[in-house]
This record gives sequence, C-alpha cells and structure tokens, in this order.
Amino acid sequence: MYRTHTCGELRPENIGTKVTLSGWVQTIRDKGTLVWVDIRDRYGITQVVAESDTAEDVMAILKSLGREFVIQVTGTVSERSASNPNIPTGEIEIKVEAVKVLNASLTPPFTIEDQTDGGEELRAQYRYLDLRRKPVLDKLRLRNKVSLETRKYLDSQDFLDVETPVLIKSTPEGARDFVVPSRMNGGQFYALPQSPQTFKQLLMVSGFDRYYQIVKCFRDEDLRADRQPEFTQIDCEMAFVEQEDILNTFEGLIQHLFKAVLNVDLDEKFPRMTYAEAMKRYGSDKPDIRFGMEFVDLSSVAKGNGFAIFDDSEAVLAINAEQCAVYTRKQLDELTDWVRRPQIGCKGLIYLRYTEDGTFKSSVDKFYSSEDLAKWADAANAKPGDLILVLSGDVEKTRKQLNELRLHMGNELGLRNPKVFKPLWVLDFPLLEWDEESKRFHAMHHPFTSPKPEDEHLLNTDPGKVRANAYDLAMNGVELGGGSIRIHDRGVQSRMFDLLGFTKEEAEAQFGFLMSAFEYGAPPHGGLAFGLDRLVATMGGSESIRDYIAFPKNNSGRDVMIDAPSPLSDDQLKELSIKLI
Amino acid sequence: MYRTHTCGELRPENIGTKVTLSGWVQTIRDKGTLVWVDIRDRYGITQVVAESDTAEDVMAILKSLGREFVIQVTGTVSERSASNPNIPTGEIEIKVEAVKVLNASLTPPFTIEDQTDGGEELRAQYRYLDLRRKPVLDKLRLRNKVSLETRKYLDSQDFLDVETPVLIKSTPEGARDFVVPSRMNGGQFYALPQSPQTFKQLLMVSGFDRYYQIVKCFRDEDLRADRQPEFTQIDCEMAFVEQEDILNTFEGLIQHLFKAVLNVDLDEKFPRMTYAEAMKRYGSDKPDIRFGMEFVDLSSVAKGNGFAIFDDSEAVLAINAEQCAVYTRKQLDELTDWVRRPQIGCKGLIYLRYTEDGTFKSSVDKFYSSEDLAKWADAANAKPGDLILVLSGDVEKTRKQLNELRLHMGNELGLRNPKVFKPLWVLDFPLLEWDEESKRFHAMHHPFTSPKPEDEHLLNTDPGKVRANAYDLAMNGVELGGGSIRIHDRGVQSRMFDLLGFTKEEAEAQFGFLMSAFEYGAPPHGGLAFGLDRLVATMGGSESIRDYIAFPKNNSGRDVMIDAPSPLSDDQLKELSIKLI
Repeated sequence: MYRTHTCGELRPENIGTKVTLSGWVQTIRDKGTLVWVDIRDRYGITQVVAESDTAEDVMAILKSLGREFVIQVTGTVSERSASNPNIPTGEIEIKVEAVKVLNASLTPPFTIEDQTDGGEELRAQYRYLDLRRKPVLDKLRLRNKVSLETRKYLDSQDFLDVETPVLIKSTPEGARDFVVPSRMNGGQFYALPQSPQTFKQLLMVSGFDRYYQIVKCFRDEDLRADRQPEFTQIDCEMAFVEQEDILNTFEGLIQHLFKAVLNVDLDEKFPRMTYAEAMKRYGSDKPDIRFGMEFVDLSSVAKGNGFAIFDDSEAVLAINAEQCAVYTRKQLDELTDWVRRPQIGCKGLIYLRYTEDGTFKSSVDKFYSSEDLAKWADAANAKPGDLILVLSGDVEKTRKQLNELRLHMGNELGLRNPKVFKPLWVLDFPLLEWDEESKRFHAMHHPFTSPKPEDEHLLNTDPGKVRANAYDLAMNGVELGGGSIRIHDRGVQSRMFDLLGFTKEEAEAQFGFLMSAFEYGAPPHGGLAFGLDRLVATMGGSESIRDYIAFPKNNSGRDVMIDAPSPLSDDQLKELSIKLI
Repeated sequence: MYRTHTCGELRPENIGTKVTLSGWVQTIRDKGTLVWVDIRDRYGITQVVAESDTAEDVMAILKSLGREFVIQVTGTVSERSASNPNIPTGEIEIKVEAVKVLNASLTPPFTIEDQTDGGEELRAQYRYLDLRRKPVLDKLRLRNKVSLETRKYLDSQDFLDVETPVLIKSTPEGARDFVVPSRMNGGQFYALPQSPQTFKQLLMVSGFDRYYQIVKCFRDEDLRADRQPEFTQIDCEMAFVEQEDILNTFEGLIQHLFKAVLNVDLDEKFPRMTYAEAMKRYGSDKPDIRFGMEFVDLSSVAKGNGFAIFDDSEAVLAINAEQCAVYTRKQLDELTDWVRRPQIGCKGLIYLRYTEDGTFKSSVDKFYSSEDLAKWADAANAKPGDLILVLSGDVEKTRKQLNELRLHMGNELGLRNPKVFKPLWVLDFPLLEWDEESKRFHAMHHPFTSPKPEDEHLLNTDPGKVRANAYDLAMNGVELGGGSIRIHDRGVQSRMFDLLGFTKEEAEAQFGFLMSAFEYGAPPHGGLAFGLDRLVATMGGSESIRDYIAFPKNNSGRDVMIDAPSPLSDDQLKELSIKLI
C-alpha cells in the first residue's frame, strides 16, 4: 500500500493520526535541524516536517531529495504552528517518521509551477511534465467534467450513445481526408471520418430516434492556431424534429453545462439572428455580442464627396469606438498598421475623432466639411468623445476586415470579458456558396443539408439565394457548433448532388448507400455537432484549444514529444502495397 | 411538431386525449371498413384504428400504406376492446382522424421482425434496416448503458477521462499497425493506436493519478469471429498502486455494471487462479468456471501399457463428462470428427464409458484391462454413467485441444448458461514467451509489464521462467480484460528492451520519450483495459461481438454497406506522396 491518504485530504480532524502519503517533491526548505518538504499530488499539497528529533537516516534522505522526486512519507498529522490559509491542508503538517524514495528525478527542464519558465516548444516536448502544472491539469479536468455532464444530460433526454466506425470511406472532399491503406485489401484505402455525418443519418433511418457520440474526427488540412488534425465533436442527431426542436434541446444542453460545470446561468432563451443580419451588423457568422460597436453603413453619407477611395467602394462601413477620441496619433498609426497586416489586408484606415468639445477631426478633412462629418457621427450615433473607424472596399472583404478590427478594439477596450458568456443562434445560412476557382457551387454546410421549403423553388433558378435549414451556435465570437435539418428524400438529395456538380455515377459510388437508405422509410431528421475542444476552451475563457487537449499537435501536425509522424520501414510499406514517390 | 408522444408512451390514463404519433408501419390489417395499423418507433408500438366513421381520404391513405412507411397519425386515445398484454401500450389504441405519409418505403429486402428471414450478408449490406429490429437495437442499448455506467462508476472513483491521440507513431510490432500517410509531412506516416498504452503511462508520470478512457483501438490483422479491425477498450491506469489495489478497483467496476445494467449480483470477491493453475486445470488462460469437468492427468495410470500413442505422448489428459456413458457410437464418432477438424487438430479421441452397471468400455480395450481402466475412472473421480474423454500429445497442444473439447461438451450438455456469470482473475502470467520463428522472446502482455520482484533474478539466467505482475479478468470462457503493474524505472525498461531484442538505437527511437519520462519522477503505476465489445457481448449472453457493434466490418475487414475500403484517385495518392505497387 503506497498511501493512506492523498496529499489534498488531511484536515485538523486528522491530527494525531498516523498516515502515509505518496507524491512529488514540490519544494524543500532546509534549515539544518529543521527541514520542510512540500509533497504534491493531483489532489493537493501537504507539508512534511522533520525536526531535531527526527531519525538521522530519515533526515539524511530528506536532505538528499530534489524537486520532482517521487517519495513516500509516513508520519503523524500535527497542528501547524503557522497555518497557510491558501491551501485546504494548510492547518496541518506531517511529522515525518519514515521516508522512501520511490523514484528519483532529474532536474526538470522547466519549473513545475503555475507560472513556469519553460517556453512553448520545450513544454511541448516534455508535455508529460507540463501536464503536472496545476493550470494545465485544471483545463483537462474541466474537459473531463464537460464531457461527463454532456453525457448525463443527453442520456436524460433519451439520446443513445452509439459508436460509429473510424475506418470509413473517402469522400469527394477527399483532399481533406486522412487515408489508411488496407493490408488485407491491397491497393484500397479507408478514410478517417471528418464527421460521422452519414452514419448518424443512417441511425435515424434505423429508428434510433436520438443519437449522440463524443467522437474524434479528422481533417488533413493546414493548421491554424485553433485547428488540430484530430479534434473532438459532441455529435448529435434527432428524428421527427424541426429546427425549433433542435434549438430548444441543445439550448438545454448548453445551459446545463454552464450551470453544472461553471455555476453560470445563461439566458433563459438564447437570442437568435439570421446569417444575413449577423453579416450586416457584425461582419461575422459568429458575432461576439458581449459588446456593441455594431457596423454602421456610411455609404449614403460618405460617398459622392470626391473622395475616390470611398466613391469607388462597394461598401463604406464604420464602427464607433466610444470614448476613444483621445486616441493619440501614435495609437491611430498603430491601428492603421494593424489593419494593414497581411492577415487583415486593408489598404488603410480612415478615422473620425468626435472630440469632447464637439468638433470633428478626421484623416480625410480635405474631402469632408464639418457638416459632412457630423452626418457620419449622426449615422454612427456617436457622441462627443467617440472615435469612428472606417473601412471600405467590396462588401464581403470589408465586412470581414471590420469584424477583425471590431474584435481587436473589443480586446483593446476590455469589452471581451472571458467570464461573461453570450450565446447566439445564427440561423438561415445560405445553402450554397459559389466557388470562383472551381466555377461551381459548394455546400456551405454539407451536401445533406436541406433547403428551406419556401426557398426550394429557387434551386433551379437562383441557387445562390437558397437559404438552408442550418444553424450555428456562436458564443463570444467563437462557433461552438452547428447543424441542420437534413434532406431525407432520395429525389431532393439526388438533385443536391447534381447542383454540386456530382455526376450520377459519382453520387452513387460515394453516397449510394445513403440514397438507398432514404428509399426504405427515412424519417425527417436533423442534428448538430459541437466542437468539444472549442466549447471547453470557451468555457475556460481561452481562445486557443491546444491547452485543452492532453497531447496536442503543433502547427505542422507533429507530435514533438513522440516524434510523429515518422518514416516507415520498407517492409512495412511493401506489406501495404505502397511505395513513396 | 411531428409528435406529441412516442409510440411506447400512451396508457389508459391518456384515454380521451388527442395525440399525434410518428413512426414506422409495422403491420396493417385491412378488413374493409375496419383497418388496423401498428405504428412503431424506438420506444414501442401503438395500434391505430380506422373504422366506418373514418373520413374517406384518411381511410384511402391508410389502405395505401406499405410496411416501413413513415407516417404521422393524429387521433384520440381510446380503450381497446381486446387488450394486448404483451406490449405496454396494449390497453389503448388511437382512433385515427388524420394521417400523413412522411416518407414511403420500398419493400424491405428482409422482414423487420425479431426473427427475420434475412441472411447475414443481406443484413450487413442493409445494416440500417437490420438495426431497426428490436433484438439488434436492444444490444446497442445495452452497450450504451454499459458505457455510461462505466463512466459514472469510474468518475465516482476519481478517474479522469482523458482523450489520447489517435494519430500516433508506428511501433516495432508495426506489422499490425494501421498507418496514415501525412500530407503535410511527405513520406512520413502516423499510426493508429493498438492501445493508448504509452500515453496513459505518461499521464501517470504527469500525476493524473487515475485515468480512464473508452477508446477506439486498431489492429490490422487477420480477423476471426470475435475480432474487428477497430475495437473499443475501457482503458484505465492508476498510480501508487499494487496489483491488489487494481484488482479491487475493477472488481468493483464489474460488480457495479452487472448490478446496474443487468441487476445481477456477482460474487463479493472474484475467485483467483494463477496462470499455471488455469492452464493445468482447464488448458486455458480464460477458463469457463460455470462448470467443472476439470482436466485429469492420466499419464501415471495410462502410460506403460504398450499403447504407443500414450506411451509416446508428453501428456495424457482427460475430462469426465458426467452422465454421458449413454453416448451412442454415432455420437462418439461425431465427437471424434469434431476434434479432428483442422481448427482443433487432434489425431483422434480415446473414450472410456463407465456404464451404469459398473463395467468399462473403451476404445482402447485391447491395451487396458478393466482394472487398468478402473484406475482411469478413479483418477477422474468418475461414477457409473460417466464418460471419460482422453487426448494426448505434447502438453501445450493437448491442453489447448482438450480446452476446446471441454467447452464443446459444456455447450452440448447445456452447462454454459448465458444468464450465469462467473468471473475469474487469472494471475501471474509469464513475462515472456519464446517465439520459435524469430528465435527470441516476445513480451506476453507488452514490453511495459513489470516482472514479479521475486523473479527478477531470473531475467538474465532463465527469462522464460519469469512471472509478470500481470492479470486478466476472465468470465465464462472469455477474456474481458487484462493489465499489469508497469515498469517505472528507466534501467529496468531498458533491460526489458534488450531482452526483447531491441538495439539501444531502436529502443530510443521508438520509446525514448517514455524512458526519458521515467527519469523525471515516474510513480509506481499499473492499469488494465477491458474490451468493451466483448464485455457487452458477454453481458448480453453472446459469444460474438459483431452484433454489439453498430456498423461492424466483415471477416475481410470490409464495411459492405458503405463499400470500404476503396481505391483512391491518382490525385489523392499524389498529394500523399505515395503510389501503389
């Protein structure tokens, strides 16, 4: 038996008890005849003390310990003369009687403290040591709790957890599939799922009625800060539902999670906004509505004054940064540099200071009189002391850029409190989006999303205008999840594949099984998937998902700790009937 | 809104209520002016009735329905004149007022009934229809419940659910790894995990203390009836534990599952047996102890009588089949044929009938007198009326064959009641096994299993004799799971790799990260993994795991429904920097 208690367990009521603890050496303070050792495990930290009456051999071992040694200590729980109110075990200490080194430790390459001196790369390489740090452990505990509460809630709502296969078939969006050569079927490949989409739909055809799974999905694409080649989804599907049923069900899930895990009460009804409105007001399909600073269309008041940049622009859009007229020239230059970075890609930034004394000062005073500028301020509902920031260009690009600028200003002004959570349903996404490169429509969500019945007549005449029965849940500027009501009719599904440029043969080869299933009594159904990594990161108040994954990969898709991916032996390749180019 | 209630919900107290149900047409009985339709969903079956006063258009639709059509019915809950006590909704029916066909159905290729007329292949191809059948649905519900109860129990025991990566590194036992070419790292490959072994050990080094995960694992090897290329494990690891702690913890889990899911009380303490004893008494490391029929060593009484087959055999082993002396010559011939099948591989079968009148009749009467045979009976503790079955040959092979025969006889005699559950811990597995082909030792469990301290001195002198700190949980002849106390010392781990024939360089390249982790304060730790598929199948009383998997693969590793694996396009191959041989 290695321990009678954990390092987070002992309290004053245990005083006088003989106990054995095991854990890691956090700190040692050696004052000659008096030695204190803090011993740590997942559950807490307990102080161990050796005094002048401690046996010599015990004292000798204690003095030989280093940081992160694994030790086992036996002793008696005693009252601590100077209690430490910061830790739950702070009122007691262990008077050591025996100590055993269970394993030694080299000096760790960085300190195992809440604030460490280790850089990102070093910590990634020694991830097993980084995971010892409390803030990192706490993030994975949060994840554990969110997963389990998700299961409990969905189970209470009659959802069945069904595992779908990981070795499936490559899809036409195949460039993003990870594939797996089959040894038993030489020359053939499995693909890893980008989502269990078709399988969960088949489960609805099977009458499973309510399905969920917390499941790994895979996408072989260039990685950004918030993307990983393998990621986890809370994947759900329901039969005999309309959009309203789904929104209500998953509003319930999210409310439950925030209450059960964070003790946060979310809005009783989450606000809703159409995609069109979200793009117009925030330039984003996942607006952060913790703060205002909504887009203002200045076209009617800013065009036609001879300022060519605006006159030639499809859109002139602004945000009003309240109380920011005091921004210095230097600050404004920095903002201009910020929007000019290649990630944002603006040519420049126009500003209008509405100074406290009621006068206007803009970067385009040459073209606009005070009266003209007053109209801008009026349109933006600005008050003296405010700062209006203006971008222009084609609508789509300008919205995207101004969205970035708005979020940046929100950060700068402290308007994006990570402890405040503002969910928002975004509805009525377009069904299709035009792809200039391939000169054809792509499914905005996926090819199984159903068009809104009232727009179905546009499918042949103006497909780009068709809205989908699709919805996303946004929170704090992050897309937590999304889904749709699915097509459940073979004819409609087949027409959709036509629209997306599939030949009949391609559609049949790829999705024949699903279209065939639709002919045997497929119920109306729909669903949704949350990104667990993002949900947990958002709940933790972080924008990066990587910290919430036990063993993440880096931006090149590498696990630097185990050094994967790596070359295979020629024998292995041969067995798989492949060779390298 | 598609429904107010499910098809399993309505009871006499709902009589008079107007309701809407949605579901599948199970049966239609059309008696002209009287039509009954049974409508089915996951929750049950409800009878819908149309009578002479039903509107004509409603009646017309009802008469046009076919099996498995998806319909929506609105009507009033009424008392049923002839109630059906077999279903919970049997006391009511719905007097239909409106009906809508939500989706039609072709005639299914097999009947959607508890007993179907569909063959295995057809049902695999239309798995989404097979999943509609109640016995299949029930198996997956059982799985859902076992998973969730596992999580609840382990959570209550402070285990943290941590997801480990799926895209990892190929190991030296690489022939069995599925691999994944990396597009971003051309010429390099990930491997899919055969188990999260090294990651869960790293989590122990990280101080996570108690880890679990219900996780997909992958093995690219020829499939048997109870193997799948992807399978699910309940994977667990604990720090600061000895074998006894682990056995107690997971005995608790299994007891909880059987109680919570099946309302079965298992033994308070599971019996235990060493590997050596299990092999001797049952010829199996996963003995079915629901019945006796233990092995009897007849060597001392059957050798030396001039019967060359026995005299030349290393082992002469028997089982006593009680009350089977009545077996006819034909039955004995069938048994002989059974053991001669290539799967078993015996040359023949010797029998001894101990007839009710106390005389002996054997297939080797030429060589043995009645007195000789009485000694056999005595050794086997046989009584008049019993039948002794004898196999001989080298010890290992004979044990294996007699184990098969014993299980077969158990089946024949109805001694293997699938509703009776007999767990058994098998302990003290050998650490290594000699492989004739490669002429070296292989790890019986895996290279991270620790030797028993008392056997450590044999590592250099007689490695084959070293017992491991390894244990399996067997139940009803099935291995539910197994695990070990791990090595947590770099030196011991390094020596183990030497023994297994790794060069220093190979060990470092493959497992350097783990050996390095052992240098930074690795705690003593151990763990265990249960095969979820097998556990659920055993709980369901089945020997085949395939029925307990929603979308299983066939013996060639194919998913015949989606037709995977399948060829890739040349473009896809090129992007992955590989080509086919």
